[in-house]
Amino acid sequence: MPSAFLRRLLLNSLCITTVCIAADVWIQSAKAQLDSQAPNAADALSSWKDCATKRALIAYVQRVCDPKSSDFVPEPERIAVFDNDGALWPENPVPFQVAYAFDVVDQRAASDPEFAKQPMVQAVLKRDIPTLLAGERHEGLLQVMAMTHAGMSVEEFQKSVSDWMAQAKHPKFNKRYDQLTYQPMQEVLAHLRANGFKTYIVSGGGADFMRVWSERVYGIPPQQVIGSSAKTKFELREGKPVLIKTLDQVFVDDKAGKPVGIHQTIGRRPIVCFGNSDGDHAMLQYTTIGNPRPSFGAIVHHTDPDREYAYDSAPKSSGKLVEALADAPNQGWYVIDMKEDWTRVFAE
Amino acid sequence: MPSAFLRRLLLNSLCITTVCIAADVWIQSAKAQLDSQAPNAADALSSWKDCATKRALIAYVQRVCDPKSSDFVPEPERIAVFDNDGALWPENPVPFQVAYAFDVVDQRAASDPEFAKQPMVQAVLKRDIPTLLAGERHEGLLQVMAMTHAGMSVEEFQKSVSDWMAQAKHPKFNKRYDQLTYQPMQEVLAHLRANGFKTYIVSGGGADFMRVWSERVYGIPPQQVIGSSAKTKFELREGKPVLIKTLDQVFVDDKAGKPVGIHQTIGRRPIVCFGNSDGDHAMLQYTTIGNPRPSFGAIVHHTDPDREYAYDSAPKSSGKLVEALADAPNQGWYVIDMKEDWTRVFAE
Repeated sequence: MPSAFLRRLLLNSLCITTVCIAADVWIQSAKAQLDSQAPNAADALSSWKDCATKRALIAYVQRVCDPKSSDFVPEPERIAVFDNDGALWPENPVPFQVAYAFDVVDQRAASDPEFAKQPMVQAVLKRDIPTLLAGERHEGLLQVMAMTHAGMSVEEFQKSVSDWMAQAKHPKFNKRYDQLTYQPMQEVLAHLRANGFKTYIVSGGGADFMRVWSERVYGIPPQQVIGSSAKTKFELREGKPVLIKTLDQVFVDDKAGKPVGIHQTIGRRPIVCFGNSDGDHAMLQYTTIGNPRPSFGAIVHHTDPDREYAYDSAPKSSGKLVEALADAPNQGWYVIDMKEDWTRVFAE
Repeated sequence: MPSAFLRRLLLNSLCITTVCIAADVWIQSAKAQLDSQAPNAADALSSWKDCATKRALIAYVQRVCDPKSSDFVPEPERIAVFDNDGALWPENPVPFQVAYAFDVVDQRAASDPEFAKQPMVQAVLKRDIPTLLAGERHEGLLQVMAMTHAGMSVEEFQKSVSDWMAQAKHPKFNKRYDQLTYQPMQEVLAHLRANGFKTYIVSGGGADFMRVWSERVYGIPPQQVIGSSAKTKFELREGKPVLIKTLDQVFVDDKAGKPVGIHQTIGRRPIVCFGNSDGDHAMLQYTTIGNPRPSFGAIVHHTDPDREYAYDSAPKSSGKLVEALADAPNQGWYVIDMKEDWTRVFAE
């Protein structure tokens, strides 16, 4: 027989309890936001079978993020580098940037007969890859890249790439190129970032080409994209600043150039490296050999002719994997068997 | 006359209230962590008088961080660039990196008579600045920089800079060089970062020199340091990867080189720029003229012969400020009068 006073008090108490529960929910959600470092690691790599690479990567990330572990690495030093072509998305039948250059040449040739007469333009129009790749330095292909990647402003180039990406389709998969990222590798990127890593692309491809879509497609902002490049030229045109793309001081971010590009841009040694070809051999060495921090190296091995391609021992264009593969057991690099280790290759 | 039951209930209710208050404190603290975008802006710039630059900067930051403002800028695009020598710390009597090179030359000359005989080494030993700066490209000084900045591994160079910084003293202030950052500028860096900006150094100084101490001294990690540089060379020495500093592909991050370096490293246009000399003119233009985002430019004007120096109209070494100062009113760049606008120059 509670009095009116008692009833009020009970009611009050119930209200307070409700508020407390609400507060608790809020606290849990705030805690989740603050501690986003702790996702379920196995679920995070859901497109991977329970393979050696997956188990080792999850264990490695746990160790370097655990302040009580002797392998702990402070967050500013958690730098992970990824090759792009063949490591995050395909590079067949030609690297996607080459497909872009070919399409630009096609378009210009259609309206410019003088341009169309040039021998290397003819080679592009016939998709005569051997002619374009002839010579020690693949002079034909370099000419084509120069025709399509210099002489315009950075903004003009960005618009051209962006327009192309919005409509061009891959010949085998009949999808837009930016829909062809490897889902298991997207999961690796996300898992590392959820654990305080900065993820970088370190690619032989052009930095300006990749930066147009890297943030949207991989969640990797332009300042975390390292690629081949040449110096731009700063000018005021009618009082407005522009940067013109040139071919001065060309830097090729491949092979021994990859550690050089990493040092130039990051100034700090990575602790995680994913590559797929001999072009990534030096970057794997730089990341893992004699590194004072615990490190992790892995190679995407293209073994899946049905869902993707199996080409890397003798590629028709880029992506040869022989030396780095032979070195993997010595160096403790994980070799990802695409066919065996991935439950799916693409998102859909 | 409360019954035992009522007493328990009252006590309970008090406990719950206490828990609720504790929870509320927790919520407030969690909120503060989540909303760290909202510090007290005036307090954040406590070494500044209530001058036009301070008021404009606080108002600008508020606008670009306010999602309801038409001037709102998404966080990934909040890029702020700062010159270093003369903008974040002094550059007199010579830039600190030149002081480092002189000290290294002194040390080597003391134990190497052949080295000591070279004319430019002699010029250093006599601190004969006019001889070192003679010629269009300051060939003497370039020779000295080459002697002291190439031919060793990145790690050897880092150790040399680090050892020097730990003991060398500035001739006027008799303090370690890394104790001479401008306190008001440290506050600008912190205020911008508290509001979601990424702060970058963009300096004519060497990237490898600055990265040794930038994180400790300014809170700016190595990947946010853009400077003059040359390509390193990747080698395996006894199976261990090393990067050797060379003089190949020298890039001078000054004048029109600054926008070029920004594009090369960040790939995105800054919206805030602080400089102090004509070497920063192009970077100020690139940041503020025709930028689709609202932007902010400012120049540190050295007007304080007592607390620092007053030199920029006719400097003895670097830091000439004539053209950019004349252009400031046209472009809306704020000119910071060091003597009038700062209540203190250094931290202590």
